[in-house]
Amino acid sequence: MKQAILAFGLALILSAVFTALLIPLLKKKHIGQHIREVGPKHQQKAGTPTMGGMAFVPAILFAVIPFLKDHPEIVPVLAMTVGYGLIGLLDDGLKKKHGVNEGLKAWQKFGLQLLMTVAFCWYRMAKAADPTMIRIPFVKEPVDIGFWVIPLFFLLVLGTDNGVNLTDGIDGLCSSVTAVVALFFTAISFLYGSGIEPVTAAVCGALLGFLLFNTNPARIFMGDTGSLALGGFVASSAIILRQPFMLLICGIIYVCETLSVMIQVSYFKITHGKRVFKMTPIHHTFEFYGWSEARIVIVFTVITVFFCCVAYLGA
Amino acid sequence: MKQAILAFGLALILSAVFTALLIPLLKKKHIGQHIREVGPKHQQKAGTPTMGGMAFVPAILFAVIPFLKDHPEIVPVLAMTVGYGLIGLLDDGLKKKHGVNEGLKAWQKFGLQLLMTVAFCWYRMAKAADPTMIRIPFVKEPVDIGFWVIPLFFLLVLGTDNGVNLTDGIDGLCSSVTAVVALFFTAISFLYGSGIEPVTAAVCGALLGFLLFNTNPARIFMGDTGSLALGGFVASSAIILRQPFMLLICGIIYVCETLSVMIQVSYFKITHGKRVFKMTPIHHTFEFYGWSEARIVIVFTVITVFFCCVAYLGA
Repeated sequence: MKQAILAFGLALILSAVFTALLIPLLKKKHIGQHIREVGPKHQQKAGTPTMGGMAFVPAILFAVIPFLKDHPEIVPVLAMTVGYGLIGLLDDGLKKKHGVNEGLKAWQKFGLQLLMTVAFCWYRMAKAADPTMIRIPFVKEPVDIGFWVIPLFFLLVLGTDNGVNLTDGIDGLCSSVTAVVALFFTAISFLYGSGIEPVTAAVCGALLGFLLFNTNPARIFMGDTGSLALGGFVASSAIILRQPFMLLICGIIYVCETLSVMIQVSYFKITHGKRVFKMTPIHHTFEFYGWSEARIVIVFTVITVFFCCVAYLGA
Repeated sequence: MKQAILAFGLALILSAVFTALLIPLLKKKHIGQHIREVGPKHQQKAGTPTMGGMAFVPAILFAVIPFLKDHPEIVPVLAMTVGYGLIGLLDDGLKKKHGVNEGLKAWQKFGLQLLMTVAFCWYRMAKAADPTMIRIPFVKEPVDIGFWVIPLFFLLVLGTDNGVNLTDGIDGLCSSVTAVVALFFTAISFLYGSGIEPVTAAVCGALLGFLLFNTNPARIFMGDTGSLALGGFVASSAIILRQPFMLLICGIIYVCETLSVMIQVSYFKITHGKRVFKMTPIHHTFEFYGWSEARIVIVFTVITVFFCCVAYLGA
C-alpha cells in the first residue's frame, strides 16, 4: 500500500512539474491544437498546446522505476502505455509538421497498434502462468477460455484505445475518467494480488497532476500522445488483472462514447442522412444542450465512480 | 470493504435524487442565496438555491442505517454530522426568514455547537475504551494525553467547523475537498479497524452525488446546513480515529483557509488598514488573480489528495 502511495505521489508531482515546463515550450514552438469542431466555443481553443501526454507519460515512467524490481508484472503494462504513447507522439508530430488536423494514415496507425499488441500478447502468453484463465464479473470461479484469449486481447486493446481516444474531446474529461479507472484498477490489483498497483497508482497520480492544467479552461490538451497511452494502459491492465469484461462496467464512459459514434454512423448510413444524437461522441450532445464542460466532466466522472463500485462488487 | 462500497453507492444515488428533487422545491419557495461578495461574478449567483445540505445529510443518514447494527462506532459520527447540520439548518432558516445574509447570532450558533460538542465528548469519554489515547502522525506508539483530550476535542471540533465553513465559498470547493478527506478517513478506518468506514464512505458518496449539481456553474449551494454538518463529520471522525493532529495534514485546505482569514484580520487590525492577501478566505485571492472557479477547485482538491497521501504514510 505504501509503495502504491509513493508511486502515486511521485507521479503527481512529476506530472505537474513536467506539464508546467512543457506548456511554455510547446507554445514557443507553436504546437497548438487545430480545432475541427464547429461552433465558437471550440474555436476559442485553437492554439492551446497539445501533446500533453509528453508530460504525464514520462512522469508515469519515472514514478514506477523504483518499483520495477519488486513488481516485474508492471513491465508489460508500462510497455503498452509508453509504446502506445509513442505511436500517438508520432501521430501528433506528423500533425504538427503538416499543419493539419490529420496525422498518421489510418492503416499506419492501426498497423503500429497491431504490432504493439502482438508483442504484448506474445509476452503475456510466454511469461504469465495460465494466460488463458480469465475472470468474469459476478462469477466466482475463473474460466479457461483457451485459444479465444488471443482474439479477445486484440479486440480489447483496439476497442479500448478507440474508446479512450473518443472520450478525449472535452477539457479534463478523459483525464478525470481515466484517473478513476486507474484508482479502481489499483484496488482490484490489491484484491487479486496482481502486483501492478504501483503503475496503476502512478497513472492516477500523473493524471491528477496533469488535470491541474487540463481542467476547463484547459491550458494544454493530452493529444493522441496522451489518449493512446491511456488506452494502452487501460487495456493491458485489464488483461493482467484477468478481467477483460470488467472494462464494460468500469469503462462505461468509453463504451458509451464508442457506441454513440457507432450508432450515429450506422444510422446515418442506413437512413441516408438521419441522426440519432445531435452530435457524437456523446459528450458533444450534452454540450449542444447547454451543459458546461465542467458539468459534463463531473457527471461522467461520477458515473464512472459509481460503475467502478459496481464492478468492485462483482470482482 | 463491500459494506463501505454499498454505503458509498447508496449515498451517491440518494444524494443525487434528493438534490434533484430539492432544487425545484427551494426555487419555488424562493430560498436563494443572498450574495454579499463584491464583483459581478458573484452577483450572478444571487437566487441560486442554498441549503443543499438538506439533500445530502439525509442521504448520508439513510445510507448508513443498514450498517448501524454491525458498526455502533458510527453513531457518534452520525450524531455530530446530523446535529451540526441541524444547527446550520436553523441558521439558514433564519436567514431565509429575515431575508438577509445573517442568521443565528454568533453567540447562539457558538452555544449550540458547544452543546453538541459537550454531548459528543461525554459520549466518547463514557463509551470508548481508552478515550484519552491518541495517535500522532509519523509516531509509532499511541500516547495517552490524559485530561488534555477534552480541550483538544473542543478546539478540534470548533476549529474544523470554522475551517470547513470558510472553505465553502466557491462552487464545488467544499464538496470536492471534503469528499477526498472522507475517502481518506475510509482508508484510515480500514487501516486501524476503527469501524466507521460505512459513514465515511457514505459521506464521500453523498458529496459526489451533490457535486453533480454543485459544480460550477452551481445549481445549488450547500449552505450552512451542509458545511456545518461536514465540519461536525470531519472533526468527530478524526477523534474516533484517534488522529486529531492528522487533520492538520489531510485538512490542509481548511487550515490554510482559516489561517488566511486570521492573518488578514490580525494584520489589518495591527496596521490599521493594510492587507496581506487581496481577499480572504484565500480562494478569493486566486479568483482575484483571474483563476476560474473550476481551476481553484481542481487545484485545491489535488493538493488535498496529495496531503492525504502524506498523512496516510504517517498513519
